This record gives sequence, C-alpha cells and structure tokens, in this order.
Amino acid sequence: MGGKFTLSINETCDRITPVDQSWLAAASERQLKLTKPPYSLGRLEAIANRLAAIQKTVTPKITGKRIYVVAGDHGVTSEGVSAYPREVTAQMVDNFLRGGAAINVLARNGGIEVKVVDAAVDADLSDRNELLHMKLMRGTANFAVGPAMTREQAEHCINSGIKLARSAGSEGINLIGIGEMGIGNTTAASAITAVLTGKSAETVTGRGTGIDDVHFARKAETIRRALAVNQPDSKDPIDVLAKVGGAEIGVMMGIVLGSAAERLPVVADGFISASAAALAVGLCSHSRDYLFNGHRSSEPGHMSLIEYLGEQPLLDLSMRLGEGTGAALAMHFIVAASKLLSEMATFEEAGVSDKG
Amino acid sequence: MGGKFTLSINETCDRITPVDQSWLAAASERQLKLTKPPYSLGRLEAIANRLAAIQKTVTPKITGKRIYVVAGDHGVTSEGVSAYPREVTAQMVDNFLRGGAAINVLARNGGIEVKVVDAAVDADLSDRNELLHMKLMRGTANFAVGPAMTREQAEHCINSGIKLARSAGSEGINLIGIGEMGIGNTTAASAITAVLTGKSAETVTGRGTGIDDVHFARKAETIRRALAVNQPDSKDPIDVLAKVGGAEIGVMMGIVLGSAAERLPVVADGFISASAAALAVGLCSHSRDYLFNGHRSSEPGHMSLIEYLGEQPLLDLSMRLGEGTGAALAMHFIVAASKLLSEMATFEEAGVSDKG
Repeated sequence: MGGKFTLSINETCDRITPVDQSWLAAASERQLKLTKPPYSLGRLEAIANRLAAIQKTVTPKITGKRIYVVAGDHGVTSEGVSAYPREVTAQMVDNFLRGGAAINVLARNGGIEVKVVDAAVDADLSDRNELLHMKLMRGTANFAVGPAMTREQAEHCINSGIKLARSAGSEGINLIGIGEMGIGNTTAASAITAVLTGKSAETVTGRGTGIDDVHFARKAETIRRALAVNQPDSKDPIDVLAKVGGAEIGVMMGIVLGSAAERLPVVADGFISASAAALAVGLCSHSRDYLFNGHRSSEPGHMSLIEYLGEQPLLDLSMRLGEGTGAALAMHFIVAASKLLSEMATFEEAGVSDKG
Repeated sequence: MGGKFTLSINETCDRITPVDQSWLAAASERQLKLTKPPYSLGRLEAIANRLAAIQKTVTPKITGKRIYVVAGDHGVTSEGVSAYPREVTAQMVDNFLRGGAAINVLARNGGIEVKVVDAAVDADLSDRNELLHMKLMRGTANFAVGPAMTREQAEHCINSGIKLARSAGSEGINLIGIGEMGIGNTTAASAITAVLTGKSAETVTGRGTGIDDVHFARKAETIRRALAVNQPDSKDPIDVLAKVGGAEIGVMMGIVLGSAAERLPVVADGFISASAAALAVGLCSHSRDYLFNGHRSSEPGHMSLIEYLGEQPLLDLSMRLGEGTGAALAMHFIVAASKLLSEMATFEEAGVSDKG
C-alpha cells in the first residue's frame, strides 16, 4: 500500500486547488458543437465539463474505476441504536471478500474494482488475504459517554484514507468511489450532520437499516447525549470526527482529501459517505470540486448534507444500503458523460445543419 | 426482418396478459433473504421483481439489449414549430449510422445494439445498408390542416413496430428500448398528450429542441388548431395516432405492443416515446406491465404522460435529447436490478446474521 512518501493532512490540503475555470469553459464550448440541441444532455454535460476541468482536457477519459468499501465497528451500538447485531459488520466483510454482497454484484456489472478496508472491525480478520488491513482498533468507544476516538486516532484514519487515494492514483485508477459497512454508523453520520449543519438530532436521524419507533427515539436521544457530553467543535472537522465519528468515516474523509489532492474525481455513496465528504469539504473547501454525490439516500439526514455540499446527487432510487452501491451505479453516468463529450461527432464532422 | 408470420394488431393485443402475481410474490420473498436490510435496494427491487414476473423466474437475466431509433418527418414543421430545419432528421440518421450521435456513444458504453429505422424520413435513404427500411411516406401530412395519416397508414406503422419487437425476440434480445428522431415530433407528442390527458395545449407544450417565446406561442396555437380541425377520439388510440401523431410514434407504439405480446420488457425514453407508450397502453392496458419509463424529460408534457402511465421514470438528469438516450442509460439500472436479485448471496449462504 501507499505512495512513495507520506503527506500530512495539512500538506494534502495545501495541494488541493480549485479546478481550472478555463478548462470548464473550453468543455462547455465543445458541448455546443456536438450533434445535439444545446444543453440537451442536462446534468451529464455539467458532469463531463467538471471531468474535463479535473483532467485538463476537453476529451476526458475514465480508464480505471475503484470503490473502497471501508468497514468499522461502533461503540455506540451498546446503546441499542441498530436493528442488526454488531457481528454483522465482520460477517459482511467476509461476504464482500467472497463477492456475494450487493456492491460486488454492482461492481462486476460496472467494471469497477472493489477493495475492502478493515478500519476498525471488532473481529480478528488478520488471515483475510484480500482485505486491506488498516485496523486502528476493534470498534470505536461509545460516543454517548465520551469521544469515539482520540484526535491522534482520527488523524491516523484520515491519513490511511489519503494513502489509499494515492495508491489508487499510482495504480492507474482515475475514478474513486467510497462506501462503507459498519453496524451503528448511521448514528455517527447523524451526529456529524447535526454538528456541521446545526440541525436537531431528530431532524437528521433516520431509520438506518430499519429500526422501529422505540429504537428511533433511543437513537435520537443517544445523539443528543453524545453532542452534550462531547461538545464537538463544528469549526474543527477533525474534532467532530474524533468525538462523534467513526474510523471508517475518517478513512473515507481521507480518501476524499487524497483524491482531490491527486486531482482524481471521487464519488460519495449515500448518507454515511456524504458525512465523510462533508468533513473533508469542511477541512479543505476546494475538495468539493472533485466530489460527486452518487445517490440520494432515503435517510433524512442526507438531505441536510446534500445542502451543505451544494450539489444534488445523480440518482434517486430510494436506496439506503450503503457499501458504495449508489456510488457504483452513479459511476455509469460519470463514464457515460465523459464518453459523450469525448466521442460524439460535432455538427461539422457529421454534416448536420445547426439551428436555423 | 420479421417473424415467421404476421399478427394483426388485435391478435397482438389478445396475446398481452398481465404479469403473473405469483412470480412477483416469489421474487419479493427472495429479496428478503438476500444479504441486505429489507427493501434497502429501493426501486431496484421493484424493477427486479417485475423482470422476474415477466421472465417467470426468481433469477431473471438480461442477455441481449437493443434500442430501435425510429426516424420520421412531420408535415407540421411547415408551421414553423421547430428550431431546426427539417433536413436534420435525415442528417441525424446518417450520424446514427456512422456512430457519432449521443445514442451511439451511450449504447457502446452500455453494450446495447442500436438499430435505426426509417419510418417516414423525407429523403431517399434507400442506399443506406445498415438502415431498417420501413418507410411509409416522405413525412406525414401537416396535421394543423388535416390528419397526419390515414387510419390504414397508422395501422401499417403499428404493424411495422410489432414486427420489429418480434424479430428482436427471435434474435435473442430480451430488453428492448425505443427512441426516435424527427424534427417536429415534440409537437405531435404534445398533441397526443393533450388528447389522452384532456389537458390544454399550453400545459403540455414545451420548448422542444430549444425554441423561443414566439415559436412557443406558435407551437401551442398549432396544436390547438390541430385538435379543432381533426377532432381526434381520445377513446381510440389509433385514431389519435393517425390524426395528430407521426409515423415513428406509430412504429414505437407497435414495438411496445409487440414487446408485451412477446413478454419482453421494453424501456421508453422520454417525452415522444412515452407518447407512443401511452397510445399502446391506451389500446391494450396490460402492455403497461412490460413497460419501464427510462428518464424524466424536461419537456413539460412528459409529466402528464408519466401520470397517465402510472410509473415514475428511473432517471432524472434534466435531459431532453431523445434518440433513446434516456432508455440507454436506464437499461444499466434494469440490468443491475436483475443481477442483484439473481446473484446476491442469501443470509444463509453467506453466514450473515439476520435482523436481531
């Protein structure tokens, strides 16, 4: 794993620059010459233009796609906030490694590589050869009674993610997706969302994998308690991550930062990965230029994060699975958008009359 | 081309049966056993269940995809309703045949075969080898002053479409898409929509390929005049097609009917293909069970047709291009849905704990 040398989080942020407006303009100009009515490809044109700006060419190409599925356990599950037992995280990691999960099916269908990362799974997975071993701990601490992690641990997670993005870049990947698995992690994502957006715990809390009314009330109450006990500083995303986040969220945050620093487009999945993306954008606002929101999750907190991130998701299929499934589906649009801009004939090439 | 024998429109309708509810139930049951929270794949589950019911298996498979791009000209262009000159229809047919149009790019990206059909292009295209020659006329008559076609001509178009669906089925295709090219055909689609839904011409008229306010007023006025002159019978879809439709719309209507009769799922693209699908559903209501709406067009009349057809489109990317581009993108999701149901591991197979 890893690049030739390690960059600190600060050095990584310093390398993230806004995309070049002149390439955006050149791509928009090319769109008008292609054999279609102006702007008739809708959002695909904006996607393609941003890819052009990221790659600094009017014929952008996606030549390698990878999704990192980052797994971690959460101490807050002891509060009874999830419908599934905690051991499901490790069981699903094995399901990912054997190719039986939804993300595996969608990745195979889309020609996308899947890499599974152990960030903090509460099980000994050291004998799993295909797993990327970045285990920091066996589950975070229960953030309802104290911080989930120390600040040093949070920074370690972010650095792991930065390394993953750098190694993807050095291995020819130029479209990265983030996904996750972690029983209890919608509670962490809701807490992060409440801090970053200033909204109430009830507003940003959802049903996760399918809890009932009693569990729902307990989950919102747990988040309120976590915010009161930990007092996370909304101006300091690393503090938020450490106090009410999770290890897999930190790794995904690092992947977003690392991708932006490497000038690689990165696709968030749904609610939990968007909470990681929001922390990344909170830390380095220019990373937003490299970020695509894959799909609109049916988790209510996702809407608040979408507003915070300032860009609508590409898909809305009422999914709420995670694992990177929404990112995998959205990648089809991103590749399609790049090919339309790169491969369509112009009016001149095709001998088609332009508007009368 | 063509099956071994020809079925009349009535015989085709008689063969269209509702999908089997017991297969829908069996597929829903299997969804609950797959390693994911119940219903967490959202609309992809409903799509997969419908494919299961169509194919009568809980492991549906899409093994061959084809989009028919049907082209035709419209006499109503002489009223000045379009932003592009009429010759663009024939020019774009050549662009399709050379692979330079948006639909070609998206079809290549999605592993979809494209067949281009000449239904009524106002040009001699007889030397184009790859074109499917079903030319009925060189453009319809101007429906602002009389019917676009005779009833016999309308039936001929529908029969051509039925033949196309039958030949696709016999050639191993099991997912069919419809798309079109025809300068002026949003005017026809708007007129059809006004008749079928009872809404005003203004409500269902849009900017097509990009007309200004003056053209827009002229287009709505032309549609009002067409309805007054022709008095199409909303209870008789073939009458509507003949009086204010178009040849390519009739062929697409036939493809929907033929697909349903062959028990093949069929994907409508945007506004114009939805007007064809609505005529098909108006004639044989059970054909609805085989129909998927690809994307939400930004043409305002499309919303009314979506209500009429009773199913939300899969995608919403603010596209308004036609050619089958929305259908091509949507096919990725239909294939993904089928693979999720067929290929995902069950809780038991994967050794994952179900809900606590």
